[in-house]
Amino acid sequence: MAKENFVEQIADIEADFPRWYTDVVVKTGLVDYGPVKGTMVIRPYGYAIWENIQSELDKRFKATGHQNAYFPLLIPMSFFTKEAEHVEGFAPEVAVVTHAGGEELAEPLAIRPTSETVFGSMYSKWIQSYRDLPVLINQWANVMRWEKTTRPFLRTSEFLWQEGHTAHSSEEEALDETMKMLGVYKEFAENCLAIPVICGRKTEKEKFAGAVATFGMEAMMKDGKSLQAGTSHYLGQNFAKAFDIKYLDKDGVQKYVYTSSWGVSTRLIGALIMAHGDNRGLNLPPVVAPVQVVIIPIAAKKGGVLEACAELKQKLVKEGVRVTLDDGEQSPGWKFNEWEMKGVPLRIELGPRDIENGKAMIFRRDTLEKTEYDLKNIEITVKDLLATVQKDMLEAARVRRDNRIAYADDINGILQGVEKGNFVKAGWCGSRECEDKVKAETAATARVFAEGETSCKCAVCGKKSAHTVIFARAY
Amino acid sequence: MAKENFVEQIADIEADFPRWYTDVVVKTGLVDYGPVKGTMVIRPYGYAIWENIQSELDKRFKATGHQNAYFPLLIPMSFFTKEAEHVEGFAPEVAVVTHAGGEELAEPLAIRPTSETVFGSMYSKWIQSYRDLPVLINQWANVMRWEKTTRPFLRTSEFLWQEGHTAHSSEEEALDETMKMLGVYKEFAENCLAIPVICGRKTEKEKFAGAVATFGMEAMMKDGKSLQAGTSHYLGQNFAKAFDIKYLDKDGVQKYVYTSSWGVSTRLIGALIMAHGDNRGLNLPPVVAPVQVVIIPIAAKKGGVLEACAELKQKLVKEGVRVTLDDGEQSPGWKFNEWEMKGVPLRIELGPRDIENGKAMIFRRDTLEKTEYDLKNIEITVKDLLATVQKDMLEAARVRRDNRIAYADDINGILQGVEKGNFVKAGWCGSRECEDKVKAETAATARVFAEGETSCKCAVCGKKSAHTVIFARAY
Repeated sequence: MAKENFVEQIADIEADFPRWYTDVVVKTGLVDYGPVKGTMVIRPYGYAIWENIQSELDKRFKATGHQNAYFPLLIPMSFFTKEAEHVEGFAPEVAVVTHAGGEELAEPLAIRPTSETVFGSMYSKWIQSYRDLPVLINQWANVMRWEKTTRPFLRTSEFLWQEGHTAHSSEEEALDETMKMLGVYKEFAENCLAIPVICGRKTEKEKFAGAVATFGMEAMMKDGKSLQAGTSHYLGQNFAKAFDIKYLDKDGVQKYVYTSSWGVSTRLIGALIMAHGDNRGLNLPPVVAPVQVVIIPIAAKKGGVLEACAELKQKLVKEGVRVTLDDGEQSPGWKFNEWEMKGVPLRIELGPRDIENGKAMIFRRDTLEKTEYDLKNIEITVKDLLATVQKDMLEAARVRRDNRIAYADDINGILQGVEKGNFVKAGWCGSRECEDKVKAETAATARVFAEGETSCKCAVCGKKSAHTVIFARAY
Repeated sequence: MAKENFVEQIADIEADFPRWYTDVVVKTGLVDYGPVKGTMVIRPYGYAIWENIQSELDKRFKATGHQNAYFPLLIPMSFFTKEAEHVEGFAPEVAVVTHAGGEELAEPLAIRPTSETVFGSMYSKWIQSYRDLPVLINQWANVMRWEKTTRPFLRTSEFLWQEGHTAHSSEEEALDETMKMLGVYKEFAENCLAIPVICGRKTEKEKFAGAVATFGMEAMMKDGKSLQAGTSHYLGQNFAKAFDIKYLDKDGVQKYVYTSSWGVSTRLIGALIMAHGDNRGLNLPPVVAPVQVVIIPIAAKKGGVLEACAELKQKLVKEGVRVTLDDGEQSPGWKFNEWEMKGVPLRIELGPRDIENGKAMIFRRDTLEKTEYDLKNIEITVKDLLATVQKDMLEAARVRRDNRIAYADDINGILQGVEKGNFVKAGWCGSRECEDKVKAETAATARVFAEGETSCKCAVCGKKSAHTVIFARAY
């Protein structure tokens, strides 16, 4: 048996978390390295997770009044210079097309690192009157940011994402939209990915280049580091002014619009892996798992076993469950390991004795518990169990995280906290100097403001605190 | 009333077909021109059509055993030179990234014009044994081909498409796959787009650069020109040898795989417009129409009208119909024109008298007929009508096309035929010289072989005919 164990190929999660991560992503067939440095190929098993993420999010975007569209990949370099902060933030990471169709281009073109500028240029054309507002458009697209250090899903030169871009007649409405979409992300992260997130405003240093304010959601990974899982930006009139997006208001006056943008990416797959995985490999929540249930025949060659398994599969398919019957030639033990590594939430084992007794054994990937259930109405049992697993995984992740939230009064406390793999809440005066000092001395960054919490003094300089901040080391 | 008529903004379809096309695509909000020459922005109404196309095709790909994945946008230029015909065909149209992250790249990178090479490089890594075959992967992606003359949807530097790439252990299986996917495209084009297509093999000149054989499907547009609506390529071992894709067969021998590739693109939206549109604008088949039914209240301010309309809408939503209630302030006549221009298959008019009589007027966009129906069970009526419209649109397009298929014995006959906007069937000896001569003298190209039909002599040189070919002017 031991020799058949796939899991031996994966590094120990406690001993070497980064290697555990790359082992898991590659060996479960989620991803492979592309031929160009820093790129990834998202393989079918990984892409199926992305399709489930897309379908869940897209439903929510449409339910909140957004429409999808598609804007061009290539953006004139000159567009970036129109918004001063934006160009400073993105120009260094841009990939540039200089030649096309056998000729040198008159103006170099950037492959979009994000699309505020090209949306801005079109919105300026489309928006004329208050009747045209709000404009609520999202796109699913690939983007490119040339990064020095890359890791599959977490940081790659090309990645897939969605980016919403909206335009409104008032500051209040644009801010409402910014917060509404942050709320959509949070609800999705918790109910679909089973990942509890902390949402809040980012510091000036950490905000999106060109935004008035950025709000992020932060998720704790199993090594205690934070992963920024999504952001929503209130852009004020910065892009409206840069791209001359004006409308004629009811009062006959030309006014600039207020805009927002918000996005999540294939990074979420990295979050799933690191929030739930363990030494057996992936551990996927049912809502986004490509395979929710695997059926493994025991003593498959005995009469009636494969037939009973196929019948069970049909029952589950009928109920809309994503189910696979593994009737391959490997031993049950080998299959157990393989499907556990792939993170399939439920495994049903069905052998001659089970069939005789009208029972089946169900294994839960999240708790590693095995329980016997009646075969009668098993499709109801399975659906209930999938819902339970989904809920329990969120709860387990929440407990893990909440046990690792610490408080600190000084920079040494922050250091000790993050060394232990905690999120550390501490007061901060609001100065860039103190923020930089935390980073230099602890390798932790200000993730988001802990909304509603107050500290009396800055953990760095001791002056009056302006915000309570969550500090953490981050991906 | 006249002043309110949107339709006046559209050029006459008989008088100026190309302008009619660009008027329709822009004025119905399908598309706009992007800031970079030759690029397009697919606006929400156009993108919703693409989403419906994607969903219908994706279902069919999965039902035939394919999985989705995502491969990188950027391909090392050196990959193209590995397959001699491929580089010759695609290098002139490639957009090239030379700088990224503030530095010049050691090797320039191509933005994919198609992905045989990058799939090939990964398949060579993934495929080891006969057990790994077949590999059946599809991706939905953007691609870029730098074109001199562009037109929205028909030919743009960037477009959206799907590309399937499969690897097999035998020639027979790879050829079966090639033909199977051509069949999937044909069934989809006819049953979803209501466009009859002629499928067949392409000449050497017209085949995909790097293929052994290309099979295409050709659709007739209302101006009698042909549009290549999809292609399926049998690649033999060309890419297997270029990228060293080998497997260990059951007999212990290392062998090259056989591959296929196949794709359709946002061009299909152009096909929809030109196959069904008319002087009122778009005319969309129900299966892919973003809005299948629009409800227009008559005398909306009269008590009970809007309520009855809203109730009707709910009934249809419940039945899964994509329905809009236009309760805007414009006159019913203005709304009629607008929604006709947008090609919505059915319009339901509901006023006080209709409600009193338990009736509603339904207008069919395809036949322009208006009929009164009982409000009782109207959701059933509407669903039946949508199915009828879908079927009738295909049939009408088939009659239009079949009336425009001509035969010719000589090159003058081909010229006369295509001048009248016909597809012309004629014998061809198989020589490149005769094929080129047809193009030079008639501006028509060999679209596909008319399978199963034989002609005795070549229409150009009079020698023995090798194939009957469909000649047409084409997009």
